[in-house]
Amino acid sequence: MRENLLKRLWAEDKAAVNGWCAVPSSFAAEIMAHQGWDSLTIDLQHGVVDYQTAVTLLQAISTTATVPMVRVPWLEPGILMKMLDAGAYGVICPMINDGEEAARLVSACRYPPLGGRSFGPIRASLYGGADYPAHANETVAVFAMVETRRALDNLDAIMSVEGLDGVYVGPSDLASALGYAPGFDRQEPELVEAIDLVLAKAKEHGLVAGIHNGSTAYARQMIDKGFRLVTIGSDARFIAAGAAQTVAEMRA
Amino acid sequence: MRENLLKRLWAEDKAAVNGWCAVPSSFAAEIMAHQGWDSLTIDLQHGVVDYQTAVTLLQAISTTATVPMVRVPWLEPGILMKMLDAGAYGVICPMINDGEEAARLVSACRYPPLGGRSFGPIRASLYGGADYPAHANETVAVFAMVETRRALDNLDAIMSVEGLDGVYVGPSDLASALGYAPGFDRQEPELVEAIDLVLAKAKEHGLVAGIHNGSTAYARQMIDKGFRLVTIGSDARFIAAGAAQTVAEMRA
Amino acid sequence: MRENLLKRLWAEDKAAVNGWCAVPSSFAAEIMAHQGWDSLTIDLQHGVVDYQTAVTLLQAISTTATVPMVRVPWLEPGILMKMLDAGAYGVICPMINDGEEAARLVSACRYPPLGGRSFGPIRASLYGGADYPAHANETVAVFAMVETRRALDNLDAIMSVEGLDGVYVGPSDLASALGYAPGFDRQEPELVEAIDLVLAKAKEHGLVAGIHNGSTAYARQMIDKGFRLVTIGSDARFIAAGAAQTVAEMRA
Amino acid sequence: MRENLLKRLWAEDKAAVNGWCAVPSSFAAEIMAHQGWDSLTIDLQHGVVDYQTAVTLLQAISTTATVPMVRVPWLEPGILMKMLDAGAYGVICPMINDGEEAARLVSACRYPPLGGRSFGPIRASLYGGADYPAHANETVAVFAMVETRRALDNLDAIMSVEGLDGVYVGPSDLASALGYAPGFDRQEPELVEAIDLVLAKAKEHGLVAGIHNGSTAYARQMIDKGFRLVTIGSDARFIAAGAAQTVAEMRA
Amino acid sequence: MRENLLKRLWAEDKAAVNGWCAVPSSFAAEIMAHQGWDSLTIDLQHGVVDYQTAVTLLQAISTTATVPMVRVPWLEPGILMKMLDAGAYGVICPMINDGEEAARLVSACRYPPLGGRSFGPIRASLYGGADYPAHANETVAVFAMVETRRALDNLDAIMSVEGLDGVYVGPSDLASALGYAPGFDRQEPELVEAIDLVLAKAKEHGLVAGIHNGSTAYARQMIDKGFRLVTIGSDARFIAAGAAQTVAEMRA
Amino acid sequence: MRENLLKRLWAEDKAAVNGWCAVPSSFAAEIMAHQGWDSLTIDLQHGVVDYQTAVTLLQAISTTATVPMVRVPWLEPGILMKMLDAGAYGVICPMINDGEEAARLVSACRYPPLGGRSFGPIRASLYGGADYPAHANETVAVFAMVETRRALDNLDAIMSVEGLDGVYVGPSDLASALGYAPGFDRQEPELVEAIDLVLAKAKEHGLVAGIHNGSTAYARQMIDKGFRLVTIGSDARFIAAGAAQTVAEMRA
Repeated sequence: MRENLLKRLWAEDKAAVNGWCAVPSSFAAEIMAHQGWDSLTIDLQHGVVDYQTAVTLLQAISTTATVPMVRVPWLEPGILMKMLDAGAYGVICPMINDGEEAARLVSACRYPPLGGRSFGPIRASLYGGADYPAHANETVAVFAMVETRRALDNLDAIMSVEGLDGVYVGPSDLASALGYAPGFDRQEPELVEAIDLVLAKAKEHGLVAGIHNGSTAYARQMIDKGFRLVTIGSDARFIAAGAAQTVAEMRA
Repeated sequence: MRENLLKRLWAEDKAAVNGWCAVPSSFAAEIMAHQGWDSLTIDLQHGVVDYQTAVTLLQAISTTATVPMVRVPWLEPGILMKMLDAGAYGVICPMINDGEEAARLVSACRYPPLGGRSFGPIRASLYGGADYPAHANETVAVFAMVETRRALDNLDAIMSVEGLDGVYVGPSDLASALGYAPGFDRQEPELVEAIDLVLAKAKEHGLVAGIHNGSTAYARQMIDKGFRLVTIGSDARFIAAGAAQTVAEMRA
Repeated sequence: MRENLLKRLWAEDKAAVNGWCAVPSSFAAEIMAHQGWDSLTIDLQHGVVDYQTAVTLLQAISTTATVPMVRVPWLEPGILMKMLDAGAYGVICPMINDGEEAARLVSACRYPPLGGRSFGPIRASLYGGADYPAHANETVAVFAMVETRRALDNLDAIMSVEGLDGVYVGPSDLASALGYAPGFDRQEPELVEAIDLVLAKAKEHGLVAGIHNGSTAYARQMIDKGFRLVTIGSDARFIAAGAAQTVAEMRA
Repeated sequence: MRENLLKRLWAEDKAAVNGWCAVPSSFAAEIMAHQGWDSLTIDLQHGVVDYQTAVTLLQAISTTATVPMVRVPWLEPGILMKMLDAGAYGVICPMINDGEEAARLVSACRYPPLGGRSFGPIRASLYGGADYPAHANETVAVFAMVETRRALDNLDAIMSVEGLDGVYVGPSDLASALGYAPGFDRQEPELVEAIDLVLAKAKEHGLVAGIHNGSTAYARQMIDKGFRLVTIGSDARFIAAGAAQTVAEMRA
Repeated sequence: MRENLLKRLWAEDKAAVNGWCAVPSSFAAEIMAHQGWDSLTIDLQHGVVDYQTAVTLLQAISTTATVPMVRVPWLEPGILMKMLDAGAYGVICPMINDGEEAARLVSACRYPPLGGRSFGPIRASLYGGADYPAHANETVAVFAMVETRRALDNLDAIMSVEGLDGVYVGPSDLASALGYAPGFDRQEPELVEAIDLVLAKAKEHGLVAGIHNGSTAYARQMIDKGFRLVTIGSDARFIAAGAAQTVAEMRA
Repeated sequence: MRENLLKRLWAEDKAAVNGWCAVPSSFAAEIMAHQGWDSLTIDLQHGVVDYQTAVTLLQAISTTATVPMVRVPWLEPGILMKMLDAGAYGVICPMINDGEEAARLVSACRYPPLGGRSFGPIRASLYGGADYPAHANETVAVFAMVETRRALDNLDAIMSVEGLDGVYVGPSDLASALGYAPGFDRQEPELVEAIDLVLAKAKEHGLVAGIHNGSTAYARQMIDKGFRLVTIGSDARFIAAGAAQTVAEMRA
């Protein structure tokens, strides 16, 4: 089975630099895939992408060595399994609040006996190879998002679920949950403390910690802290930022 | 009929700042449309867009006041008329070489008696208004690309065609045609001279001159020279540039 | 943030005339949007539309001042949040049976602290404006469909949920639930009584009452009664009715 | 091979009632196909439809006995042959001006020795049957649009081309060409005379005459005159008209 | 209402030969539909198909007499009802584990009073006929997949649910659940015994038993045993197998 | 620039085994691409594929080392250049009849000074590399189809055009043109003689000869004769053949 290069990076205690695909276009994704990311995550939650389009984005990413991941819209078995069958090598699931939800996430992503994932890796076995069924459980990376107060209260329970590879901090929702305005790159002590707690617990449980960032400076700080999956930028943001700057320069 | 804001700019001798849509996604186009461009051109020639997708991009642009234009793949009446019926307020046609080709271009874009455009403005009359048929001929902007040696030799013939609004310089193809490597923002004397000639002839014929640029600095120089439709940047380039820079910063 | 014109109508105790989009075509939706409706609802439940297509319909509606709404397929957080992120200014959710379901609906549609909606208004902030996050909770209209016997038994509980804007009567399902054949414009005393009860309770709770109708005559009666969101007609029905009548006239 | 029911109607000197599909949605087309038309024409010229979408419309129509036709965007061999391969049983080609253009149209639509159509009826042989190649030339109906002054001047040359089944009057373009505002259901003597001339010539040449209409009343007059392919209405118009009338009734 | 030909076959104790559509292309489905299957099942679980595409596949199948079925991704009411509204004449739902899940499945598929399916058969009434609402409950076939250990333990509870037409064995998942490698055409005694038990229970409860197969030889054995819905082959497998064999012959 | 592996095969006097994609699905293409073909040709002429879909097929093929080619619908510059910009590494153009047509084909495919291809390799430079512009002219393979009587009469003129890589025999059209029924794998002496003549002339001009085949046996004979691009099978045929055989086995 094709190796999951993220797992090799993590084995070497290196951080994966992750890009984000929110534009429903396989061409946009292919451009992204050629820029040197370790992985690209197709965002089916807040991105403008659903399953059928996401498959074409997975194909576009598969023209390169970049690892294809997805964020699913919600903890729903149907879409989780469909995206894995389509060849996602990593899954990020939003708003996991407790151990029971984490267990349901893992169950949807792992074949028996570890979980209850249904068998049918129709594109995954093209991308991963004919021996995908035998190695998928240890190859596919599964992340639970920690972004609610309940999740903070249940970190041990969440992280104790066998088969979970990591947790992923959503700073906007976490901030909202704690009474702050949404946004990335938080400096508020209460939020920094919460983020640090997630990281510390992840290390304790031997899990990978990931986080969403708004600037490369902050993302690099997160790597220095110990985060090993750092997301920075998205196709949608690059378009908006590049266009806004260009127009501003022309109007100056 | 909805006014073509580009024509107002030109009446005031102001330059239109034009963006470029090459990504086949109406969401990408909508992001672009919110960044303050005077106009956006959907590129059906070198962009990854064909008719059916282009209609959704026109709709996305139509959620704002940005003027929607298209570049067609070639001087073919079918696609020219389809894009106008879909509500394009401007058309750029590649590789017009002589007066006869310019006349065919204009004929495809103008209703009788000026041309031979077939009647059926199915979306154009939604976007432009019920009186679109009466005003389309003077509202829609038609540009012939000047980018070949034959075009340089036939500038007067091309620009004498009644119903043509302007000419648009494609620096890459023009450079190729004259024996240089393709690329924007040319400084070679022979190319600068050719570009200046097109501009001078356009002024002489009372036409708008446009040009494709690779940097805002060059684009602003072109405005200073007298170009009144300056293109700079594209959604595809913004993704590539933004992602490449982000990854570089993370790897630094 | 862009105002929700429906809320202004309701503040003035005026009824909103709502059209219905069931055809998966942004062009069909754009035609609809130009006919003067106060709002258009994209039907992801019984219409032939899913998320990816619905986004293009939202864009098409956004070319006009018509307020874009959606009916989701079911009380599922994934699709509810995706449609809000895509810029829906109103949501109608089918088959809300009790207060707990109503609470889950509201939670999916409202940011903290009112609910648990995840943050990422990717297209909503283009359509609504950069301050969408601050005003979304009071701008977006959320309707629970009342169309089952259990819902009739739990009207107070449903309507007491903070953050719910209104209830929407589905006469076909309500009729089925009470043992009648499905269909609109009910005259049976038991059904009229049920509908009147919903309306009275809505007024009591300070909520907007909405209803689906089969004829303009009935819809106007509903407005006279006090309904303030009246749906009448759909793109699919207009095609079928117009074509059937035309063929009939030709065969006569 | 599946019979072309239009040809049977014409053999019995009956008129075919033809509907028009301009909305790029196979569901809209399927609704249309269930309303009793003799044939439906997918409009790739002024409709919002291109090839890939048109194939799904052909499939939708093929769920019924309604005969599927197309109007192509222009006299271009590529799209003509692609639509025939996709199973169109009739083709209407715009703006045929003289015998040479009519000959090119027929050549693109007929297999050797009658024409130069390339062989590969990939969907046509599913729809028409395995013996499609042997019978296509006499089964598929080919119409040249007569809508320009040059066409009026060349009626005999156009109609003398072997393999042409009929001519189809486009009243809007014909009116434009003769100096009138575009529109259907013309009453101006000069236009009526031109239309009558086309009809008379068609009868003389043993061809079917068709015409586009704006009302059933006019369409029925055209049948009485002798037209045997009368188009009336379109999915796009039914949506617009139905919605406009509904909103008007609600606002009254 | 259009008859469900599968139900006629089963009334005559004949087996239905069922094909499988996993490729998201209405053209691929139309090719399949012309090859003589009794039914075709569009796989929204492991196939590369979601709702919007599935509708076009249903249309493609509807050009023939082949019965259109779907396998849904999961026991989720939203997609179950959407597929039925789109005209599926049969539904297969994965991973039904007990009577309560079977009851939820049936409820989503049956109109009151038998279930809680919401009313709006938008395409189903085109395909099935205007009297679809009156006959859908007895016409549409509903299958629960038996493929987990829990399901084996709850066969009577599952099969006792009124309104269920049959059970469908997924041999791969069943094998996984019992500790074997996934795959079709099982010969292991424990698996054969489990399969036989499902079949025996189905006969006892008067239900149709179905099964997925990997070879025609095994499928025919299953028919001989008493299975009445046997699936064999898929468009995706035919492409892979045909291409692999062709390349092998060329390389030999 | 990424090497064109076909050119390496031809340099070693080896034949390329070419598959054919006629199904408009990137997933179908990806399945094909994993079966070991030297190249895959996306058929935009008789296949059910147009530009926008073809791009996704190119992406799917690009996930493997298989060389992506296209057959365009017709000798039209717009689509030729768009497909090259999209990354096709080979082009087959139907119905080239004489040297002038061959010259137009080559001109559309080659950058100056060899031809007049317009510059903008938007996806080609992702797939081929940043130095695509410098090497495209010698990397991209251009084939003219020889399949008409006029082409047979003009073989020397066609093959003398500088920049043409090869000729490709379309046996069905060639047979039609010479008065035979269409079909592959011709044995008629007149047709064999014509095919042999094309091959001999190609060798004489130093060009690659290609041919479409209906069976591996015939294709291998063609290789033995000297053809170096042999097409055999297509996704559409594999589906039809596999399904037909499976159903036949079940009915036996």
